[in-house]
Amino acid sequence: MSFAELWESLLPVGRDASSGYRRYSWTPPDLVCRDWFTAAAAARGLRTECDRNGNLWAWWPVPGPGPVPGSGPGPFPAGAIVTGSHLDSVPDGGAFDGPLGIISALAAIDLLRDRGFVPARPIAVAAFTEEEGARFGVACLGSRLATGAIEPDTARDLRDGGGVSLGDAMTGAGLDPADLGPDDDRLAGLAAYVELHIEQGSALAGLDAPVGIAEGIWPHGRWQLEFTGRADHAGTTRIADRRDPMLPYAAAVLAAREAAAGRGGLATFGKVIAEPGGANAICSAVRAWLDARAPGETALGRIVDDVSAAAQAAALDQQVGFSLRRESFSPAVSFDSGLRDRIAVVLAAAAGPVPVLPTGAGHDAGVLAARVPTAMLFVRNPSGVSHSPAEHAEPADCEAGVEALAAVLADLAGS
Amino acid sequence: MSFAELWESLLPVGRDASSGYRRYSWTPPDLVCRDWFTAAAAARGLRTECDRNGNLWAWWPVPGPGPVPGSGPGPFPAGAIVTGSHLDSVPDGGAFDGPLGIISALAAIDLLRDRGFVPARPIAVAAFTEEEGARFGVACLGSRLATGAIEPDTARDLRDGGGVSLGDAMTGAGLDPADLGPDDDRLAGLAAYVELHIEQGSALAGLDAPVGIAEGIWPHGRWQLEFTGRADHAGTTRIADRRDPMLPYAAAVLAAREAAAGRGGLATFGKVIAEPGGANAICSAVRAWLDARAPGETALGRIVDDVSAAAQAAALDQQVGFSLRRESFSPAVSFDSGLRDRIAVVLAAAAGPVPVLPTGAGHDAGVLAARVPTAMLFVRNPSGVSHSPAEHAEPADCEAGVEALAAVLADLAGS
Repeated sequence: MSFAELWESLLPVGRDASSGYRRYSWTPPDLVCRDWFTAAAAARGLRTECDRNGNLWAWWPVPGPGPVPGSGPGPFPAGAIVTGSHLDSVPDGGAFDGPLGIISALAAIDLLRDRGFVPARPIAVAAFTEEEGARFGVACLGSRLATGAIEPDTARDLRDGGGVSLGDAMTGAGLDPADLGPDDDRLAGLAAYVELHIEQGSALAGLDAPVGIAEGIWPHGRWQLEFTGRADHAGTTRIADRRDPMLPYAAAVLAAREAAAGRGGLATFGKVIAEPGGANAICSAVRAWLDARAPGETALGRIVDDVSAAAQAAALDQQVGFSLRRESFSPAVSFDSGLRDRIAVVLAAAAGPVPVLPTGAGHDAGVLAARVPTAMLFVRNPSGVSHSPAEHAEPADCEAGVEALAAVLADLAGS
Repeated sequence: MSFAELWESLLPVGRDASSGYRRYSWTPPDLVCRDWFTAAAAARGLRTECDRNGNLWAWWPVPGPGPVPGSGPGPFPAGAIVTGSHLDSVPDGGAFDGPLGIISALAAIDLLRDRGFVPARPIAVAAFTEEEGARFGVACLGSRLATGAIEPDTARDLRDGGGVSLGDAMTGAGLDPADLGPDDDRLAGLAAYVELHIEQGSALAGLDAPVGIAEGIWPHGRWQLEFTGRADHAGTTRIADRRDPMLPYAAAVLAAREAAAGRGGLATFGKVIAEPGGANAICSAVRAWLDARAPGETALGRIVDDVSAAAQAAALDQQVGFSLRRESFSPAVSFDSGLRDRIAVVLAAAAGPVPVLPTGAGHDAGVLAARVPTAMLFVRNPSGVSHSPAEHAEPADCEAGVEALAAVLADLAGS
């Protein structure tokens, strides 16, 4: 099955009629994606196992005797080389963010097989759970659980918008949430993790390069802002008597853009909830989420401080309560420099020099980097659009990504 | 049954555990309110009929022969005096907005009966449907249908947030939506409509008066603003590449307050929907609703123009699409001056002079004023808070309202 066939077979799953993908973890579209993964792996003779945190691992073992991963309890093979990404999506997301890394991994294995490559180390393709945090609110949930970056009790009790806990969602899918937690033995057996991903920006397009190598991930986080006013009639409450939380929210939105521009980072309000939300009533409260990222933690802190100060001042002006709470934070990630340099040499030998880029996006690779030598490859995204149905990479660039990943795997897992 | 008993019996219906009333038309709480109304009327010997538009009318007929309204098809009585209000609520509304007018009407009838009053004209208590527009988006829907201010086809196809049409909701409640439409014979038989309502502001408190008379209703309307941007990854899309619709929305919010303050009116954004609404994605679109009101139509037009111009300019800045659509508009209402003066004389004779006030709030009385001599009484609201669980009137002021309404009904329907 070619890259194109793999791609086409996954394309319809979880696609909304009008507006992109809604593949949220442990929902029916996600379960179909998981079955697709297991079937695609099986078609290549790869055995798939589901780890204690719901992440899938499809193994290409070293020929001969020795532990076969996924065949039961027992020691994990040492020195495994892992590639992969995730299958879940943001609301109305695109087809590439996540699946491109998994399909490219399977296609790279096909290439290696076709060329007679025999692994001297086990190779695995991993599909991590809830990378986007679209259902339970914590990005990279599967890799965070595996590395111990989130407490199992905290994770089990995460709730989706309908009040369903992660524990109940996993139970519903036939897993036991009591197993959630760090997977130290597994991680100890990994020699490298290399994630291929569509670029979520247009730097490669500007550099005229189909493939790039990640330098690191900007520190980033999510903050909830809550403005508490007083519900009142929109048609009769005098301006002087109003405590309208929408006004300081609006001030915060404008301040966020200004702070990001001034400090070289990014700040976004993509989610806002107005309560009670009647068109003829002043809101009692407005809750909103700030996504902020910057090249360094100092700049990031200043952006958030700027937004908070502007929101606080506007809230005081309107006699509205204001609070800010950090929901998540990912420190700066610098990928393993030895691995990065080795990959750069391999790719340069295969197809010429490859650019090295920083990114503002979080990935499972960023979480795993705390425990495993980790690297990322990016594939050119001409428009830079991501988290959108318009996200796109050209087929030729996807093929270049598969070639690059195959070269990297051959180098890392070769004799 | 006293005012207090009537009040207590309705109080639990449709009250959310935490935050006010959710009595939306044709939902179970609304149906319980309707049954409550019919039972309270029957306890007073008043027969309740439901008109073709779902409005309820409880009749106290003139003694002796003649058409008895609600007893079947046939001519409506001429010269009827109607009082009443509505039972539905805004989301998380208060207990007084609407029900106070209905309970006061029933209590006023009790007072008149106790005092041996015999009507020379029929008296009706009316409960109008969907006054708040909280479910189907059009305020004063029942009175608009009765007066022909909205087309039956348009009304039948109004949808709630879940996609249910008004027609289907009425069918589900056992009514035939094919009957919707103007009720000319009924309106022709009405000599006056007097609606008692809690004041939705604190003017009476400032004037130290328990009861006031409405002068008129400010022109007001609702506009939908739509900002169309481009969904993108919040963590990777450069500021220069963003088309973020949240920014011009924020500019519109701030412009609305400034325009209202500058032109002596009111402007509110109480409802906003961000799409797709992911915390780590730039929105593809933001839709928001502007509620605007002013003492005159010229000032109102200028407020809306100011908001539209600011939104358009900010949208251009961000390369975001912008459109504005008027969803509803109610021209200025000046209540019948003869009726208003007559009521002022009656109330002054009973308890001393009563202030006359304008209001920015729409009411069924404002819609009916186009066809029937109409007046309104307001009851003091110490904080001015309305459309909120904190909405309140003191029991003594409610009693003063009942006394005033009884005096007005005795005058208008007396021999």
